[in-house]
Amino acid sequence: MGVDSINALVAQLSRLPGIGTKSAQRLAYFILDMPDGGARELAASIVRARDSVRYCPVCGNYTDTEPCAICRDQSRSEETICVVEEARDVFSMEKLREYRGKYHVLHGAISPTDGIGPGDIRIRELMARVEAGKVREVILATNPDVKGEATASYIARLLKPKGIRVTRIAHGIPIGGNLEYIDEMTLLKAMEGRREM
Amino acid sequence: MGVDSINALVAQLSRLPGIGTKSAQRLAYFILDMPDGGARELAASIVRARDSVRYCPVCGNYTDTEPCAICRDQSRSEETICVVEEARDVFSMEKLREYRGKYHVLHGAISPTDGIGPGDIRIRELMARVEAGKVREVILATNPDVKGEATASYIARLLKPKGIRVTRIAHGIPIGGNLEYIDEMTLLKAMEGRREM
Repeated sequence: MGVDSINALVAQLSRLPGIGTKSAQRLAYFILDMPDGGARELAASIVRARDSVRYCPVCGNYTDTEPCAICRDQSRSEETICVVEEARDVFSMEKLREYRGKYHVLHGAISPTDGIGPGDIRIRELMARVEAGKVREVILATNPDVKGEATASYIARLLKPKGIRVTRIAHGIPIGGNLEYIDEMTLLKAMEGRREM
Repeated sequence: MGVDSINALVAQLSRLPGIGTKSAQRLAYFILDMPDGGARELAASIVRARDSVRYCPVCGNYTDTEPCAICRDQSRSEETICVVEEARDVFSMEKLREYRGKYHVLHGAISPTDGIGPGDIRIRELMARVEAGKVREVILATNPDVKGEATASYIARLLKPKGIRVTRIAHGIPIGGNLEYIDEMTLLKAMEGRREM
């Protein structure tokens, strides 16, 4: 096109996940055709989110207050902590409107091949919260992959001697899933996790 | 989540075409997790594109110079003008690296039901360019839908008396397309446009 600022915008947009060059072009043209306020609002919302959002010093979730809304919420039980890898996982969990305890975001998972050890994620902070005394159950909701499993096992080993209930979320066939199309690892987990009917 | 600035960002992102609420959430979290420079660059590229890009006063294409790079390019023939509805169509055409004439962007199509008449799109400007004298052929590359066809017919009627060659891009079965799955309108166009072998 020879229009540098359009090419630059397309390049920026195509760095986003799931946005290929074609989608980035379509988005760029849409943004160019937006009423001027629209494009500015979009840009401002990006900067505002980056500027105002930080991690809760208690649980590690995204927040714009300290501590975060969930940590401050007195109607939520302090006896249960659900441990997740990333702040986005809190969001997924909250959408269920089911869980009424607190969270702890690790900001990663143990991965020796990537050089990430237990000291590189927020395990120390989790232990400090548990040692403060009120916690009765820690639910390990790390991802069902190699790193997530390793992290869950590591934390479980640390917590068990403290006489706390340590649970792992169930893995298995998703509802509506079909045995035929399910991957072997999930099927294996589903078999391992089978229950009496 | 209770984090207003994240919700605002998700709302802004989900206004983009092809971005549903789920994708918007994924994008928002990606943006939050970007190194700080990255999010700012993205926001800045949106504002910069909006600020620097305007319409070429000659052809109506997007440009950051006046006239645009295509209008200034002396290696491109001034004898042919390809008429398109939107600036993005110029981009699609240019990707072919085949056409070496000039363009004229109408910024819309005639659509009586939407209250858009010939005076609302850049037909007057097209006529002025043709009357300047150098143009020998006008290629009508408006979309093959009701509005695009109406616009093409209208412009053709205006230009024909001026002794200029007026052509319409071909419509038919796309390469690799299958008769069985093609819509009736395209098939009809393909039959109408049939040629001797």
